[in-house]
Amino acid sequence: MSNINETEIATLGEFGLIDHLTKGLEMKNDSTLKGVGDDCAVISNGGGDTCTLVTTDLLLEGIHFDLTYCPLKHLGYKAAVVNFSDVYAMNGTPRQITVSLGISKRFTIEHIEQLYEGIKLACKTYDVDMIGGDTSASVTGLLISITCIGEGQKGKIAYRNGAADTDLICVSGDLGAAYMGLQLLEREKAVSKNSQKDDFHPAFEGHEYLLERQLKPEARKDVIEELASLGIKPTAMIDISDGLSSELMHICKQSNTGCLIYEERIPIDYQTACMAEEFNLNLVTAALNGGEDYELLFTVKLSDYEKVASMHKVRIIGRITKPEYGCLMQTRDGNEIPLKAQGWNAFG
Amino acid sequence: MSNINETEIATLGEFGLIDHLTKGLEMKNDSTLKGVGDDCAVISNGGGDTCTLVTTDLLLEGIHFDLTYCPLKHLGYKAAVVNFSDVYAMNGTPRQITVSLGISKRFTIEHIEQLYEGIKLACKTYDVDMIGGDTSASVTGLLISITCIGEGQKGKIAYRNGAADTDLICVSGDLGAAYMGLQLLEREKAVSKNSQKDDFHPAFEGHEYLLERQLKPEARKDVIEELASLGIKPTAMIDISDGLSSELMHICKQSNTGCLIYEERIPIDYQTACMAEEFNLNLVTAALNGGEDYELLFTVKLSDYEKVASMHKVRIIGRITKPEYGCLMQTRDGNEIPLKAQGWNAFG
Repeated sequence: MSNINETEIATLGEFGLIDHLTKGLEMKNDSTLKGVGDDCAVISNGGGDTCTLVTTDLLLEGIHFDLTYCPLKHLGYKAAVVNFSDVYAMNGTPRQITVSLGISKRFTIEHIEQLYEGIKLACKTYDVDMIGGDTSASVTGLLISITCIGEGQKGKIAYRNGAADTDLICVSGDLGAAYMGLQLLEREKAVSKNSQKDDFHPAFEGHEYLLERQLKPEARKDVIEELASLGIKPTAMIDISDGLSSELMHICKQSNTGCLIYEERIPIDYQTACMAEEFNLNLVTAALNGGEDYELLFTVKLSDYEKVASMHKVRIIGRITKPEYGCLMQTRDGNEIPLKAQGWNAFG
Repeated sequence: MSNINETEIATLGEFGLIDHLTKGLEMKNDSTLKGVGDDCAVISNGGGDTCTLVTTDLLLEGIHFDLTYCPLKHLGYKAAVVNFSDVYAMNGTPRQITVSLGISKRFTIEHIEQLYEGIKLACKTYDVDMIGGDTSASVTGLLISITCIGEGQKGKIAYRNGAADTDLICVSGDLGAAYMGLQLLEREKAVSKNSQKDDFHPAFEGHEYLLERQLKPEARKDVIEELASLGIKPTAMIDISDGLSSELMHICKQSNTGCLIYEERIPIDYQTACMAEEFNLNLVTAALNGGEDYELLFTVKLSDYEKVASMHKVRIIGRITKPEYGCLMQTRDGNEIPLKAQGWNAFG
């Protein structure tokens, strides 16, 4: 490796690095409808009614997961589901995945079987076929690289850049629980280190929801299906992997809009609220920036208000504004404060 | 990580592990035409004339590449090209790739720019679009996971299982050079370790072809185009990444045939032959099992003999036989010996 100028990657961060490396990329194939910059790339299938959606996620031991508390079966399930979530976020249907694994010597065949059990269960649950991959030894640790192929209907694909002034901002499920689950797991891991092995019992009772949100998240297939049955096509959509603030700012930046959301409208489960109090963490910050919720954030036309308001699993949290207003949150006391993207950064 | 039965992965090897993990996989989507077990998976695109091809390759530092002698730009080029090669091996055209990187702290932005330069150059050379990926910090080393999406014409896709008795066995280019290039690089690395930094000059003169085959291989787009222009559809095809023996045995196993190839027909460059002599290595073993040639191995109907014989870059090396004959090579002295798959094994 030659000795060249040394600019640490942390100075750019993940999104900065991707922007830097992919700026000015030219697309040569007519079939490439959308390249870098959305939840999936979009490829046209000749003259047919469908498009192919492609997304990929890399999970590395020591960076994205900790096998001290993450069971391999859950890890496999999550690794697949986070990819499905990206396809749903385009208003598409996941169909196939490839699974590549790098495996160090400390893993046995039985370990990899557990991991695969989780991947297979996710495929079964979401009707997805495992069609290939690559498997190799690794020097250290486990790595999982999954690519998901999905199907979208031409004219129904939801991009990040389609939001417009007066659109309603909607979010499915609730936010911040996966982050609180992670805090809980990290605390119990620290406690376990300081105690004798035999007398340690992690304090997980009453926090099952938080753990499940962190260790075995689901993708919102149900929400996509309900939107379709109500005849709603989101004007823009993204899945919440890095936190609500960060994702909403992606939509606003790519749509060239501003936004106003209401703190009191952000959906939060009571277990998340209790845990935030126990940890003395700011609940709204956790909900805005916690990440790994894998809920859907989308915008709809104002004329779809009644339809979307009828959806039990979806809450309207604000509206899209003109770009000059910026990205704002109205707090419970009536102040308007700028949103900040403090989402998770692997190079932080 | 729970403490479960411990069967070392090396007991199965790479292919054994994949077979073990993917046996009994059921495909649920009508669009999945071919899953695990060929150079690419094949997905139908609704009613259109084309299919989508999908392949993925994982390259890990310390396992697949050594940055002591592999320039990052070459590495990027090779990482992309080996995926294109898998698409050509289906008689298809690579169209898009996703690129996922895991990057440890010793890498700077400039390093990753060099890697990307190589990937971009490969994309430009082969008319492929880079459409996405994932980028993350890693605990140690560099990893590259590339997925390639290709296009195939229905009815023209070449699988591994289509060879039949009397078909001709053909191979493009020449074999064993990439392996000899690797031996050379490893030798010079060892010599460099034992010498003062300032007075070391690697002895690469006259071996440029071997180094290029190892460090910057090309995929045989030209051969696929020539086959198309001659109106030849291979009955079976595979790219030679693990060595001729191993790949030919994949074709025979999946086609339920035997084969007979002739030692004297195996194409070998004179630089490869000279280097084998210098290293006192068996030349034919290197050509049969060296790997990383990225040439195409394919079979054609006997009736295509004249057409295929007219191709300057392709040599007919033998013929497909009935399964009961097994996989044989006739040596220069007229003996018939069984082929053995001694290809590279990442878990070896």
